Amino acid sequence: MSDVILALDFGGTKATAGVVVDGERSWLALQRSPLPPGLTAAEDLAHMIGLARLALAGRRPGAVGVSFGGPVDASAGVVRRSYHVPGWEAVPLANMIATEFGAPTKIDNDGNVAALGEAVFGAGQGCRSLLYLTVSTGVGGGWVIDGEIWRGAHNLAGEFGHMTLDPDGPVCPCGRRGCVERLAAGPWIAERARALLADGPGDGALLRRLVGDDLTAIDARRVAEAAEQGDVLAWQALSSGARALGIGIGNAVNLIDPELVVLGGGVSKSGPRYWAAVRAAALATALTETRLRLVPAALGDESPLWGAVALARC
Amino acid sequence: MSDVILALDFGGTKATAGVVVDGERSWLALQRSPLPPGLTAAEDLAHMIGLARLALAGRRPGAVGVSFGGPVDASAGVVRRSYHVPGWEAVPLANMIATEFGAPTKIDNDGNVAALGEAVFGAGQGCRSLLYLTVSTGVGGGWVIDGEIWRGAHNLAGEFGHMTLDPDGPVCPCGRRGCVERLAAGPWIAERARALLADGPGDGALLRRLVGDDLTAIDARRVAEAAEQGDVLAWQALSSGARALGIGIGNAVNLIDPELVVLGGGVSKSGPRYWAAVRAAALATALTETRLRLVPAALGDESPLWGAVALARC
Repeated sequence: MSDVILALDFGGTKATAGVVVDGERSWLALQRSPLPPGLTAAEDLAHMIGLARLALAGRRPGAVGVSFGGPVDASAGVVRRSYHVPGWEAVPLANMIATEFGAPTKIDNDGNVAALGEAVFGAGQGCRSLLYLTVSTGVGGGWVIDGEIWRGAHNLAGEFGHMTLDPDGPVCPCGRRGCVERLAAGPWIAERARALLADGPGDGALLRRLVGDDLTAIDARRVAEAAEQGDVLAWQALSSGARALGIGIGNAVNLIDPELVVLGGGVSKSGPRYWAAVRAAALATALTETRLRLVPAALGDESPLWGAVALARC
Repeated sequence: MSDVILALDFGGTKATAGVVVDGERSWLALQRSPLPPGLTAAEDLAHMIGLARLALAGRRPGAVGVSFGGPVDASAGVVRRSYHVPGWEAVPLANMIATEFGAPTKIDNDGNVAALGEAVFGAGQGCRSLLYLTVSTGVGGGWVIDGEIWRGAHNLAGEFGHMTLDPDGPVCPCGRRGCVERLAAGPWIAERARALLADGPGDGALLRRLVGDDLTAIDARRVAEAAEQGDVLAWQALSSGARALGIGIGNAVNLIDPELVVLGGGVSKSGPRYWAAVRAAALATALTETRLRLVPAALGDESPLWGAVALARC
């Protein structure tokens, strides 16, 4: 049997295919491409198969692992839906990929797969339990418990983003109020900065300058840049997201007491002040004896792809 | 080897010793006694050994399981402390009991043991995963994951009571703000009722009558009685506790997606309206697909004692 593993990462805005020899820690080949907007599920799939063929370059994989950016029934190998690309409802992706490449295929959602990736190849090596969190346009997560992905009774474990933190807080698109995601995800940090700018026309000079006075150009990255450079308004917006995230982490740690919490995603790259604020809120919330360990994702954006390698070998 | 199991429950205000033949579902003997106030750990232990000898009536146990009302290092068999009885710091209770009765002894904290009890003998039979919660003078909990107690990396998993629900809420004795326990435990429901009575001298006539106008006699049970009989003020106090508990349950379910949530403890006996309010808040917080199942503890106050039986057999 081939010792080549094919790893696929169906992201919301990009697709990645990696090929690795089992046991190696670097890619034999890696193909990454942004998703053209307006794609259907069939096109998304065809696009990924194209990337995979390029990466394989004629090699035949012995196993395939897939990370999918949306809810998945992992045991059935079926995608439930995508929040980004229409038409993914109830697609038996594991079987389709297995047929395409003639190799056993395992799939799971990106939070779970990334958690496994960090546990096997990243920051959590040697840990029996960890919580992986990603903060970008949304907030997602996954658990490794006793060395395995913990999926829960309905493949829904790790829905960290919709923990209620403020029952009377702002309405989240999910319909609830004060969810971690609504308080800590990138778009909401940007929105808060815009609202503060509108309230205080004299504030946030540095942030205004960074976006050339075009408030629609504000995103969490710009807010973080301005905050790191000392913009008080930007820090106010960023730190409120950091505090919410930290309280959510503390709550999760009190419930499950994992060895490690691994934080990834674009917003997690907001700099040392952001990290200090997340850590402070998490430490203030977690019971002292949980000895909270909070570290950045060691695999960066590749946590799901390396997780797909680990998943293929399960 | 003897097939008699000795189960001990060191509660905060009472001690219970049960004896059962392995495989049976009813007690051969059961001894229960309130703890005299002002006890030391040594007296607490001697008192329990006395109860156990009465229950054993000369029989020799093949195994002993112990539920302890306070933090425990289960793998070392050592009690960390009691919140009720002084002197329990670092007591190697498993070894002391094993020596006393000449039988292998396992110990764990009451939340974990009760969770195991409900999983093996109670509401969670056949479930792979469950969350057990108890709401009385405090709020505690325990997880069974994959059929076993999940203790976490530092024996602290299941600290549901100190989940932050309202970061700007009232200060909890633990020092944090807006903990589930601070919002949902019995003494705080009573305190809220007293505060509402002080604010509205014309309100809560039914509750006032129930305690003969002695506000210091108000406890959560009286508040629940008055609420069930239609007292608006009492329902306001009780339902705010129910809502906080329900949101906390929804958050825990979103994180771990257990098959079942089992609710026990004195406050959980506050009647159908209370249950409906807990359930409504939990359902509104949990993602629909987690198909939340919330049920009362089938073993009532005996969840920890039956859990001790299950623990002894592990």
